Amino acid sequence: MQLGLVGLGKMGANMRTRIVAAGHEVIGYDPRPEVSDVRTLTDLVRALDAPRAIWVMVPSGDPTRTTVASLAEELSPGDIVIDGGNSRYTDDFEHAKMLQDKGIGYIDCGVSGGVWGLDNGYGLMAGGADADVARVMPIFDALRPEGERADGFVHAGPVGAGHYAKMVHNGIEYGLMHAYGEGYELLSAEPLITDVEGTLRAWTHGTVIRSWLLDLLVRALQEDPGLAQISDYTTDSGEGRWTVEEAIRHSVPANVISAALFARFASRQDGSPALKAVSALRNQFGGHAVRDTTGRSVGETGSPPDTSAG
Amino acid sequence: MQLGLVGLGKMGANMRTRIVAAGHEVIGYDPRPEVSDVRTLTDLVRALDAPRAIWVMVPSGDPTRTTVASLAEELSPGDIVIDGGNSRYTDDFEHAKMLQDKGIGYIDCGVSGGVWGLDNGYGLMAGGADADVARVMPIFDALRPEGERADGFVHAGPVGAGHYAKMVHNGIEYGLMHAYGEGYELLSAEPLITDVEGTLRAWTHGTVIRSWLLDLLVRALQEDPGLAQISDYTTDSGEGRWTVEEAIRHSVPANVISAALFARFASRQDGSPALKAVSALRNQFGGHAVRDTTGRSVGETGSPPDTSAG
Amino acid sequence: MQLGLVGLGKMGANMRTRIVAAGHEVIGYDPRPEVSDVRTLTDLVRALDAPRAIWVMVPSGDPTRTTVASLAEELSPGDIVIDGGNSRYTDDFEHAKMLQDKGIGYIDCGVSGGVWGLDNGYGLMAGGADADVARVMPIFDALRPEGERADGFVHAGPVGAGHYAKMVHNGIEYGLMHAYGEGYELLSAEPLITDVEGTLRAWTHGTVIRSWLLDLLVRALQEDPGLAQISDYTTDSGEGRWTVEEAIRHSVPANVISAALFARFASRQDGSPALKAVSALRNQFGGHAVRDTTGRSVGETGSPPDTSAG
Amino acid sequence: MQLGLVGLGKMGANMRTRIVAAGHEVIGYDPRPEVSDVRTLTDLVRALDAPRAIWVMVPSGDPTRTTVASLAEELSPGDIVIDGGNSRYTDDFEHAKMLQDKGIGYIDCGVSGGVWGLDNGYGLMAGGADADVARVMPIFDALRPEGERADGFVHAGPVGAGHYAKMVHNGIEYGLMHAYGEGYELLSAEPLITDVEGTLRAWTHGTVIRSWLLDLLVRALQEDPGLAQISDYTTDSGEGRWTVEEAIRHSVPANVISAALFARFASRQDGSPALKAVSALRNQFGGHAVRDTTGRSVGETGSPPDTSAG
Repeated sequence: MQLGLVGLGKMGANMRTRIVAAGHEVIGYDPRPEVSDVRTLTDLVRALDAPRAIWVMVPSGDPTRTTVASLAEELSPGDIVIDGGNSRYTDDFEHAKMLQDKGIGYIDCGVSGGVWGLDNGYGLMAGGADADVARVMPIFDALRPEGERADGFVHAGPVGAGHYAKMVHNGIEYGLMHAYGEGYELLSAEPLITDVEGTLRAWTHGTVIRSWLLDLLVRALQEDPGLAQISDYTTDSGEGRWTVEEAIRHSVPANVISAALFARFASRQDGSPALKAVSALRNQFGGHAVRDTTGRSVGETGSPPDTSAG
Repeated sequence: MQLGLVGLGKMGANMRTRIVAAGHEVIGYDPRPEVSDVRTLTDLVRALDAPRAIWVMVPSGDPTRTTVASLAEELSPGDIVIDGGNSRYTDDFEHAKMLQDKGIGYIDCGVSGGVWGLDNGYGLMAGGADADVARVMPIFDALRPEGERADGFVHAGPVGAGHYAKMVHNGIEYGLMHAYGEGYELLSAEPLITDVEGTLRAWTHGTVIRSWLLDLLVRALQEDPGLAQISDYTTDSGEGRWTVEEAIRHSVPANVISAALFARFASRQDGSPALKAVSALRNQFGGHAVRDTTGRSVGETGSPPDTSAG
Repeated sequence: MQLGLVGLGKMGANMRTRIVAAGHEVIGYDPRPEVSDVRTLTDLVRALDAPRAIWVMVPSGDPTRTTVASLAEELSPGDIVIDGGNSRYTDDFEHAKMLQDKGIGYIDCGVSGGVWGLDNGYGLMAGGADADVARVMPIFDALRPEGERADGFVHAGPVGAGHYAKMVHNGIEYGLMHAYGEGYELLSAEPLITDVEGTLRAWTHGTVIRSWLLDLLVRALQEDPGLAQISDYTTDSGEGRWTVEEAIRHSVPANVISAALFARFASRQDGSPALKAVSALRNQFGGHAVRDTTGRSVGETGSPPDTSAG
Repeated sequence: MQLGLVGLGKMGANMRTRIVAAGHEVIGYDPRPEVSDVRTLTDLVRALDAPRAIWVMVPSGDPTRTTVASLAEELSPGDIVIDGGNSRYTDDFEHAKMLQDKGIGYIDCGVSGGVWGLDNGYGLMAGGADADVARVMPIFDALRPEGERADGFVHAGPVGAGHYAKMVHNGIEYGLMHAYGEGYELLSAEPLITDVEGTLRAWTHGTVIRSWLLDLLVRALQEDPGLAQISDYTTDSGEGRWTVEEAIRHSVPANVISAALFARFASRQDGSPALKAVSALRNQFGGHAVRDTTGRSVGETGSPPDTSAG
């Protein structure tokens, strides 16, 4: 079938390649003329035969919102828009409404797989009406991994369900990565373990904790032994926060996912105000030594032997 | 080669099958006569040609300790004992000392893979002397998954390193399982998700969070939709506790693994004393309604409309 | 001065008593005629001399929103409304806007102290314009504890700051209560401690952890030894959730407060879906025994001695 | 009565002052001659009338162990030793055994109050035999806060119970301090709050969260506004670790206390290996930008607009 694709960045470009390889026609639009097949979004719409299907693959929030709003202006009844980006599921309700008022269909589709999806296929989670999902199925089939459709694609529910599923997927991802991180840190701290990287590699086959993320961690350690070249400064792109917010909304205890999220926050701090307060308190009641901001120990009374009685 | 195998339970029996299939000879001993090849541990030792290799696959703690102590009596210099159970790594130091005094070698080997290891091979983490490990390598090669040795086997360090690695492996396992658990719970709580099981299944291919544990969770849900037949009462067999204790010893923040561990503790409580205290406090300062142990709401003043100012 | 007071529940009634005791005139309105001084909100407004000050002490959310909207209709330019309930700080922006359009002032005031505030005075956190706060100061002075004004009252910032401060106060409260709860549970679990209640009582003076909440916990234990009469089912009224949401918004690691919040969620669950998933996984890979929903152990293979190798 | 006191550091010296002020005789020994009343521990024993009572107030671990061992040599049947330091409760069993074999009594006494105990009195938690505790009661009465004995002193149980109670006290302390720390950090992060320090001060009276620790935090902020002079590097002296280890032993979920403990660990790290692993993983699957150890952003592909699909 024919597909319009808005956004030809890392993800979009790879997805185009995979869809074309499956025998479909893709007309791509991107604001960067050097990679775009057409000059404007309007041109993209004109270049497609009705009823059109347009896949939006741009950053979530304003860029996606603006793109969908423009498409609501340009498209015709019977056309369909798929948001394949990482939008918050609540945005989907607005997008669907905006389009539905013009008779245009809407599907939200969570896409997982990163830069590896080009070769492996992408895990897909779609939300929307049955008829809409059915119409775009050839594209989903092109993007998902080979094998049974249900092993890599789900129609998770109505509009919003796709991004909700993707959000939860990413929340789990936070927890998984941090669990491996804690294990890696503990192995690294223990002198008995003389082959940390070999241990992780040995875990990739046969063990209970084997996974694709573990394969990637082994790969990262092969490229950068001891992770010596990388800082611990870790960003987050929203889904982890949203997952914890949803856990709060549904009264779901999310200790693991929130711990993984908070650890990222802490990694970006230049000194924790909370721990400054704790340190100041210890100094107040016990005369415990604290460090000033240059790292110098201060505030000790210096009279050994001693016992503090905090 | 020839191997003595002590313990023919679920794990031991499967391992014997796999070792024999690789062309080795296994003489097994188990206190249950109906599954044992010999009548006593002494008979096992007599049945083996020196220098002997004996793999111990019995529960950790006293059963392993007793077995190793008996072997220290029965075996001869140049023999070797492998503890393949889930012993705490500190036990290994005692076991190795006990045997070393008699000139007997010792290897601790963490084994992962569960009931699936029979077909898939087991992930193996060994600790011990180079020469000892080299001598038993044919058995490790038989047990580990096919393919490159390093993808399923590691000689992680000296005695203790194998069980240390296995302990950390299991600690990670706690975190991974709980991350999936939280995600599963959140999906189940959200009405938008009309196909929870399909969503998990779709995650098994192409996504970032695909893993063997996820495959198993999908399998469990296929066998018992909604996990309706299973209680949330979750036991633990020690490695999770040890992992957190090691994290404390090494000053490693282990928020994720400890959260997973504590959740299991909570699952086994019949009422949390901590939350009774919290509930009692809320009642004390705010006159908030609390429930008595029969679930009846008590302690309210009943005068609406109201605002508590806790 | 003269004050209108909307809401004569537990908190409102006590506050009226305290304000009147300080020599002010309070006209109270409550939908329950038996406790109300006037028949309607309109009557309340008519009964007050302009410029009026009306303190709203009703549940947060719709009740407060409706009350403020009605007051926006009834009041005159120069009047002032104080929301002393537990509104979310974002509601304050709407309330202030609604009133400001009519020339009516608005203060949000967090009030802490519970049922004890009548005698001890209430801790007050106000948000609003300097002039508005100054005008209502006699009421704040009546409500706050005796002593220096700064020890019990703060003008924390512009509109919203009062409820923001109260929200954080309650978030801290969650953490404090749960810390005591965990300590209480641990004391109760340890056979060496033969006098749990006496230990808590001894902590109330001289120690680092002495506090008003600890006094209350001792009191609760005196009334109900062993907390035998109370369930662990613990509700939450919103501020804890909001605090964690704000922590997420500001990228503040809030491990302690979120753990306390999640523990309350868990206390209200009748079986944790997350732990069902964990338990199902353990059964899948290790053949570990699990419990069915009646508590019966199932799924074991029953062949001792054995070692699982999860 | 007469008391021997070993250890005249910060705590010991203050305690001597308080005991003497209550009319008792104290003979102190400290290795620093300038503060010691006697030249050696042997001289101290000689200077006391039998039956003797000697209070040991030196750092826990080896210093206390050595002191108790020396006293076991020097003292006579009927004498009594009190360990007032922060020993782990398991040490008490050894100490008691060592002394009991010579007919010498032993009490472990947790002491809380820090440098403020001199004026306020100390919270005391004693473990030991009834007769031993009764004999030393005049000293306990001198040290504890004025008022009822039960409000500041408890005989918590047999030997070990005193230090166990103190350990739990300190575990709670970790949780309380961190709860205040998180609240302080959140207040500081929110622009609406224009008076963070005033808000904390206003919480000291009337509110639910008022406490001695809060008073100290206000004091610390008055001395060092914004805690600008202090680093977040926070040490720990063992009791927090022991508390979590005990929680694990008793299967008590200790999410709050462990989170507070782990935050201290993290504060002392120069880069978290766990988060390096997480960051490396994000780079592997998503091509997400990471920072190298100099803080420079690396690894981006740089092609906007884009959507990662992690």
